[in-house]
Amino acid sequence: MDVQAGKGDIHHRVFINKSVNLGNIKCYGFDMDYTLAIYKSPEYESLGFEMLRDRLVSIGYPHELLRYTYDSTFPTRGLVYDTAYGNLLKVDSHGNVLVCTHGFTYLRGEEVHQYYPNQFIQRDDTERFYILNTLFNLSETYLYACLVDFFTDCSRYQNYQLGFKHGDLFMSFKSMFQDVRDAMNFLHDTGSLKERTLKNLDKYVIRDPRIPLFLERIKEVAKVFLATNSNYNYTEAILKYLLDAPPDSKSPRKSWRSFFDLVVVDTQKPLFFGEGTVLRQVDMDTGKLRIGTYTGHLHHGTVYSGGSSDIICDLLDVKGKEILYVGDHIFGDILKSKKRQGWKTFLVVPELANELRVWTDNSSKQTDSGCSDHSDIGFIKSKIKKITYTMELGYGKMGSLLRYGSIKTLFASQLLRYADLYAVSCLSLLQYPSTHLFRAPNVLMPHESAVTSLTKDLPLPDLSANHIIRSTTIKPVTVGHVQCSLAQH
Amino acid sequence: MDVQAGKGDIHHRVFINKSVNLGNIKCYGFDMDYTLAIYKSPEYESLGFEMLRDRLVSIGYPHELLRYTYDSTFPTRGLVYDTAYGNLLKVDSHGNVLVCTHGFTYLRGEEVHQYYPNQFIQRDDTERFYILNTLFNLSETYLYACLVDFFTDCSRYQNYQLGFKHGDLFMSFKSMFQDVRDAMNFLHDTGSLKERTLKNLDKYVIRDPRIPLFLERIKEVAKVFLATNSNYNYTEAILKYLLDAPPDSKSPRKSWRSFFDLVVVDTQKPLFFGEGTVLRQVDMDTGKLRIGTYTGHLHHGTVYSGGSSDIICDLLDVKGKEILYVGDHIFGDILKSKKRQGWKTFLVVPELANELRVWTDNSSKQTDSGCSDHSDIGFIKSKIKKITYTMELGYGKMGSLLRYGSIKTLFASQLLRYADLYAVSCLSLLQYPSTHLFRAPNVLMPHESAVTSLTKDLPLPDLSANHIIRSTTIKPVTVGHVQCSLAQH
Amino acid sequence: MDVQAGKGDIHHRVFINKSVNLGNIKCYGFDMDYTLAIYKSPEYESLGFEMLRDRLVSIGYPHELLRYTYDSTFPTRGLVYDTAYGNLLKVDSHGNVLVCTHGFTYLRGEEVHQYYPNQFIQRDDTERFYILNTLFNLSETYLYACLVDFFTDCSRYQNYQLGFKHGDLFMSFKSMFQDVRDAMNFLHDTGSLKERTLKNLDKYVIRDPRIPLFLERIKEVAKVFLATNSNYNYTEAILKYLLDAPPDSKSPRKSWRSFFDLVVVDTQKPLFFGEGTVLRQVDMDTGKLRIGTYTGHLHHGTVYSGGSSDIICDLLDVKGKEILYVGDHIFGDILKSKKRQGWKTFLVVPELANELRVWTDNSSKQTDSGCSDHSDIGFIKSKIKKITYTMELGYGKMGSLLRYGSIKTLFASQLLRYADLYAVSCLSLLQYPSTHLFRAPNVLMPHESAVTSLTKDLPLPDLSANHIIRSTTIKPVTVGHVQCSLAQH
Amino acid sequence: MDVQAGKGDIHHRVFINKSVNLGNIKCYGFDMDYTLAIYKSPEYESLGFEMLRDRLVSIGYPHELLRYTYDSTFPTRGLVYDTAYGNLLKVDSHGNVLVCTHGFTYLRGEEVHQYYPNQFIQRDDTERFYILNTLFNLSETYLYACLVDFFTDCSRYQNYQLGFKHGDLFMSFKSMFQDVRDAMNFLHDTGSLKERTLKNLDKYVIRDPRIPLFLERIKEVAKVFLATNSNYNYTEAILKYLLDAPPDSKSPRKSWRSFFDLVVVDTQKPLFFGEGTVLRQVDMDTGKLRIGTYTGHLHHGTVYSGGSSDIICDLLDVKGKEILYVGDHIFGDILKSKKRQGWKTFLVVPELANELRVWTDNSSKQTDSGCSDHSDIGFIKSKIKKITYTMELGYGKMGSLLRYGSIKTLFASQLLRYADLYAVSCLSLLQYPSTHLFRAPNVLMPHESAVTSLTKDLPLPDLSANHIIRSTTIKPVTVGHVQCSLAQH
Repeated sequence: MDVQAGKGDIHHRVFINKSVNLGNIKCYGFDMDYTLAIYKSPEYESLGFEMLRDRLVSIGYPHELLRYTYDSTFPTRGLVYDTAYGNLLKVDSHGNVLVCTHGFTYLRGEEVHQYYPNQFIQRDDTERFYILNTLFNLSETYLYACLVDFFTDCSRYQNYQLGFKHGDLFMSFKSMFQDVRDAMNFLHDTGSLKERTLKNLDKYVIRDPRIPLFLERIKEVAKVFLATNSNYNYTEAILKYLLDAPPDSKSPRKSWRSFFDLVVVDTQKPLFFGEGTVLRQVDMDTGKLRIGTYTGHLHHGTVYSGGSSDIICDLLDVKGKEILYVGDHIFGDILKSKKRQGWKTFLVVPELANELRVWTDNSSKQTDSGCSDHSDIGFIKSKIKKITYTMELGYGKMGSLLRYGSIKTLFASQLLRYADLYAVSCLSLLQYPSTHLFRAPNVLMPHESAVTSLTKDLPLPDLSANHIIRSTTIKPVTVGHVQCSLAQH
Repeated sequence: MDVQAGKGDIHHRVFINKSVNLGNIKCYGFDMDYTLAIYKSPEYESLGFEMLRDRLVSIGYPHELLRYTYDSTFPTRGLVYDTAYGNLLKVDSHGNVLVCTHGFTYLRGEEVHQYYPNQFIQRDDTERFYILNTLFNLSETYLYACLVDFFTDCSRYQNYQLGFKHGDLFMSFKSMFQDVRDAMNFLHDTGSLKERTLKNLDKYVIRDPRIPLFLERIKEVAKVFLATNSNYNYTEAILKYLLDAPPDSKSPRKSWRSFFDLVVVDTQKPLFFGEGTVLRQVDMDTGKLRIGTYTGHLHHGTVYSGGSSDIICDLLDVKGKEILYVGDHIFGDILKSKKRQGWKTFLVVPELANELRVWTDNSSKQTDSGCSDHSDIGFIKSKIKKITYTMELGYGKMGSLLRYGSIKTLFASQLLRYADLYAVSCLSLLQYPSTHLFRAPNVLMPHESAVTSLTKDLPLPDLSANHIIRSTTIKPVTVGHVQCSLAQH
Repeated sequence: MDVQAGKGDIHHRVFINKSVNLGNIKCYGFDMDYTLAIYKSPEYESLGFEMLRDRLVSIGYPHELLRYTYDSTFPTRGLVYDTAYGNLLKVDSHGNVLVCTHGFTYLRGEEVHQYYPNQFIQRDDTERFYILNTLFNLSETYLYACLVDFFTDCSRYQNYQLGFKHGDLFMSFKSMFQDVRDAMNFLHDTGSLKERTLKNLDKYVIRDPRIPLFLERIKEVAKVFLATNSNYNYTEAILKYLLDAPPDSKSPRKSWRSFFDLVVVDTQKPLFFGEGTVLRQVDMDTGKLRIGTYTGHLHHGTVYSGGSSDIICDLLDVKGKEILYVGDHIFGDILKSKKRQGWKTFLVVPELANELRVWTDNSSKQTDSGCSDHSDIGFIKSKIKKITYTMELGYGKMGSLLRYGSIKTLFASQLLRYADLYAVSCLSLLQYPSTHLFRAPNVLMPHESAVTSLTKDLPLPDLSANHIIRSTTIKPVTVGHVQCSLAQH
Repeated sequence: MDVQAGKGDIHHRVFINKSVNLGNIKCYGFDMDYTLAIYKSPEYESLGFEMLRDRLVSIGYPHELLRYTYDSTFPTRGLVYDTAYGNLLKVDSHGNVLVCTHGFTYLRGEEVHQYYPNQFIQRDDTERFYILNTLFNLSETYLYACLVDFFTDCSRYQNYQLGFKHGDLFMSFKSMFQDVRDAMNFLHDTGSLKERTLKNLDKYVIRDPRIPLFLERIKEVAKVFLATNSNYNYTEAILKYLLDAPPDSKSPRKSWRSFFDLVVVDTQKPLFFGEGTVLRQVDMDTGKLRIGTYTGHLHHGTVYSGGSSDIICDLLDVKGKEILYVGDHIFGDILKSKKRQGWKTFLVVPELANELRVWTDNSSKQTDSGCSDHSDIGFIKSKIKKITYTMELGYGKMGSLLRYGSIKTLFASQLLRYADLYAVSCLSLLQYPSTHLFRAPNVLMPHESAVTSLTKDLPLPDLSANHIIRSTTIKPVTVGHVQCSLAQH
């Protein structure tokens, strides 16, 4: 297949931050949720939102909240919730505030300054600022906006800086946050969201026939493992749905487990990439864990629970740099596997389909209008603002996942630093031969560009394979002869 | 002056990572050491090396060490010392090992793998890995190499993985590290290095007549402060030397203090950018601190000790985004002021002069030779290795501060993330008008480049001034009318 | 009633570590479980044991475990489980090992030394040593012994120092510990133990008609609050059972809530005595929490959830020293309320009934036999060992809660330090007038005793009410006159 | 010598908290300062006070402070300095405030309540409360009082709750505390206090001829080591002075080192009792450390630096329970060696001489006056207050080290918990044979006393040697036969 494919194929391309040579990859690892198992949007987020919302009402929140329904055009992944003031923030990698909403109201510059002097947050203050990093957080993100919207407008409640008051009850943004998080944990611990999903798999999960094909193709050339934080029963149900041949299929029935050399559930990422937990075997008849710790060799078709990335490397006999790990969680999957273990990483970014669509549209528009040489800087600034605003709305009400005008979001900067490769879907890998060399362009530093502007396209040596080649010893010049004598000292 | 100057001026240019509009800067802050006060190289590093070395001998290290002298071609800033194995490592931002030396011996790929499986270190393990981040660390870096070199070859000592043995004394790399650090602290606490420097200022510090000129020019348009970790006496001596008019000068004598709106010594950066310490006044007659905490308004010509960046902003009545802070310490000056306070940052990188020289030389060479279309990939790889190696040696024995071939060093990646601007010297700012807009090129993300390759030079709106412009509220669609009633709940 | 009562009343006495003047107590606080609600022993512990055991079997532990039933003569409260080696330890306050069992086998001195060199544990190592502090832990304590007993003898498993091996599964003592703890949390989180208890209250909870009487009497003279970690529904069910007049009673129905000025559930002690959690109101119709934080004044008959001891003091308008807090948990109730808040404390120790019985029996025996003046020290030592052993067995298989021979246990030393008063039951307070002064005997220090042996019963001034009486200033002698002058400095 | 000696010998007695059998002690360890080397009081404290005071003046404190001289009747060891409010507090083990002074003014009950609601401090808040635990702290304690006294009365300064104001300088109690601590560290780091001491040993250190005698006697029956935080040069000078035979002595010159099996300097207690530091040899010709870590066997007459208590046990081949460690620091010496290592401990309490004297005086007075049976409780209370006050003043202006009336101080309670033995001087051990059994009286718990009041002097078995004697296994009753079968599971 032609990798130099035209614009039409851009949605199936793999994008490159750092060079990866597939020829050196001996092992592929996959997360399950939102990586192999793509949830249908907005159906799945709507389900999550409604269950969260209903849970809040069931613990005492006003029943008027039931009138809110999920609006997929509002939330963007990667927003930050300020638990002190109830605002949703879009920030860059340093913590500069790019967009700020309170409920569904966009705050203007002066208002933002009142909340955040210097228009800046210390995002290391994780006690206060909660990063809504994952696709699972989208419904929660929208719910924060709904809650603030409702209580702000509701005449029963008085507005205060830190929350709302009704009689002798004070509803702080902080306690609302805690309630939503508790509701989230409730859904998770009781398994009720998973139960609802499994009852209607066709409604919530995309069954892409290319997935078994894709995994089979990879397994021919490398080892394959799955590492998911989900439990065994859910994992089995989802992967059966995705991988088992349909009843009417002519192909012989093949177990979902046969697609993997190793299946690990309950991984507790990001803990999995550090100290990890006890590795246990799953009894596949009962779905329960075997007691005790597994200490033997790898058994094919066995499912394990817990463990750590170090144990996985041992069991599969591979080194970190030989693994390409494919996941959707920028922190739990990608940052951690890269930073703690030096794995090669592939980030799945479903939103990229939309990002590419808007960008393409705008690119052509820009080319049409161009930027004529107005000398009036005020005119230009105002035009830039207008363009940015329009572009942002093209992505959704909170704008792009990756940018605000020329400024990249926190999410984008983490993607650039930690994901070697990224794409709309892991299936994009199907477009490339199994020995493909993904070659990142050499990004020059500003002072290098300044020099090289004369001598374009300098072929910088590519050392992505990290061959360390120095071999000679260069002794320094010494005064006299530095020699140690046995007698001395 | 013409900013679009040709190649000849490249050593005086300011390079741009993020846009900074000088017109918005209301305050300039300066570190002193290696920022305003540039130490002469290698004289100053030699002095430091010799004092360290002599200290070690005086506490019992073999006197043969005295034969080592400083070799400025060996160390590169930003190396990592592995206190477990005594190796010096050049690493990238993720902890991948690029170059590894043991003493003066470069280790080959297999050797590196034995020390570092996966050729990777967890650089967050600061107990074990010590980053030699500053120009002050250069002499120390070289000393580690000397020590390992000496003991490895000395027949009195047996070599072990974790150190050397002689009789019933075991000299671990860890304890050698501790001894060097203690020696460093000894030089610092006793002030002996500073004393030697002050005795021979002409030998160790560059007196650039443009510095007073530069500071005067800035003070006309903005507030100026100095924030140094040095103590008052040293600060006064150095700045008198740099700023006071020479005795034969015709210009009236002007105090060094008059160049600043605020002078703060003993700042304890990086602590200064967080909680800080107690702010005290310096009694300029005695050089001693006034007892108690200073609580009043800013007095011109007064020198303070301690405090924090927050206090500085209050005293000078400026916000973080209005400050351009100029320093040489990538962590203590630049990363911290950016990350904790959102200041604009300017990194002084003296090595950049050399980096630019080598890069320019190589660029022209590359253009000469080109890269002919050999189809033999083995030939290309081997050629790349050779080129990388040659280029590295062009910089020094440990290679470039910023790169190993196509891979950027940890130092380079921090420079790119945290320094808005950088240059060989802070005096480079003299080349630009006081309202200059340093405009960073828009760096596209890989998927954006893929789209935009058709439509070059898209004028992305520049929002570096962070004007948040949204103003309208977009209410989401709700089922029915979400309205709260007074009666309910 | 005569407090100077004879031996017959000893089981109803309150014992005194530090003087407490009931006349100064303005507020009584009560824990619920094992304080007001006394569970029937061994029925309740048996229930807990069986549910834990069954849970383990249901997650894969061998079904042979089902043959074990609870033996109340084995466990003693306050033992320490060594998660590394699976031993149960009885220790003193410094961590000296007094008794050590592995399963049901008592280890001899040499064996103990092999496990614990110096016969000593660092009990601050809470990662490794788990203190089984509460009456709820008794069933768990027994289960650890059962598990070790079973696997040690089972021929399917090989014995290792850190656990047992069967095929490629390794069952470490650590993982067994984790499984039991998880089972404990499962019982708690699902509420299944509480459910079983509520279904058969007469079987598991002692309904003592003196409790409503006791609370009524106290409420006449002081404020009364309840602070329990249990949730609202369980608390309501238990207290209805204990306090509501029985259906056939002639007295008018009175709500359990009317016995308290303040009822707080979900207290999360010991967190409650420190930072605490959000205070919410309980909606008594639904048993659910009101959303938001309660900020108003105290409403009688209202039930709250969460909060902290500071909030309780505010709501009730009392100071820490005016509160007598009655609980059964040496750490969560007594140590924490004393150490963090300076409350007066009353520890309920149900085992004290048995301890008093055995002690009384032995005292009389001792008096019978006496200790004749054998000069053979070997004979005496051996006799002492025999006596200790016999006495220990009088208490149960792990001996007394409070002693091993002359040595006090960790539990006893905490009781002595943190509990001002202690008794078999909180109802013992009924024996004393509401203004009674519990006066602790003055315990002399060894050097004081040595002096005072001549002058018995020195009436040391009792300062339990902490009147600080000094009022005069005693200026030190100074050289000349220390005076500060306005002009100086 | 007759241990059952009368009252006359009480100052030479060893007092017993827990039984110690000298016959089982194989090793004696000694701290140096205030243990073997007793500083002359108040000469030494005066010296310390003056050097501290002068240092403060030299860094800018008002020279009027020079008029203060040390008053040994004011400070008591073990006071707590409240860095927030500048008060000195005498507290009990729970943090109840017993005495409170501000400068030299005693605060009355109401004043104390304003500072400390509930008359209680959370003494775990070590950020705020600084415990003046050691004899070295006495001069510092007095200095805090002087500083508060001076600034309070000085008309140049205004009084605020958190400190004093003069012009735009605010002198907080916190910063005064920091200045004093810094001055303390300055004296220590520069060695100036030690220098002054060594210049006039006869003035500052008691040369007791029994010390060499005592050490010799011990060395005949056990191993002896010294573990001091002082450095080698100071240690050598002090021990030479104490142990070397005087020039005119007839006995042959014997090195101070020969009195010990092991000498360790720079121990960094309390760190020494935990992880410790690197063990190095001291080069006794130069007093400098050998480089590298010592790894060999014990060499007699060698001096070591650093290390840890574990290393000491290895080198001397003894177990923790076989060591009797003699020191003066309740925390660094006694609590830590007991809690972390299970050593036997002997606390030297020089103040005990005075405590015994006052106690003896008062005992006889009490016996004279008695406590007649006045029924007027007001009269009794007032009398008790008066007695307490008088007794306190008998000890000094801050009263007894150990008591405030019937309440024991924090120091006393730590002494009772962690010191097995205590005495005025370590030389008190000379009064006892080397196999003496120090037998602690059995202290009964309150409920035991209540029972035993009938049957006095029950000979509780003494298990201080910790023989664990149980040997039989007692299998629990099981339902059926708990047996595991090979086939199952």
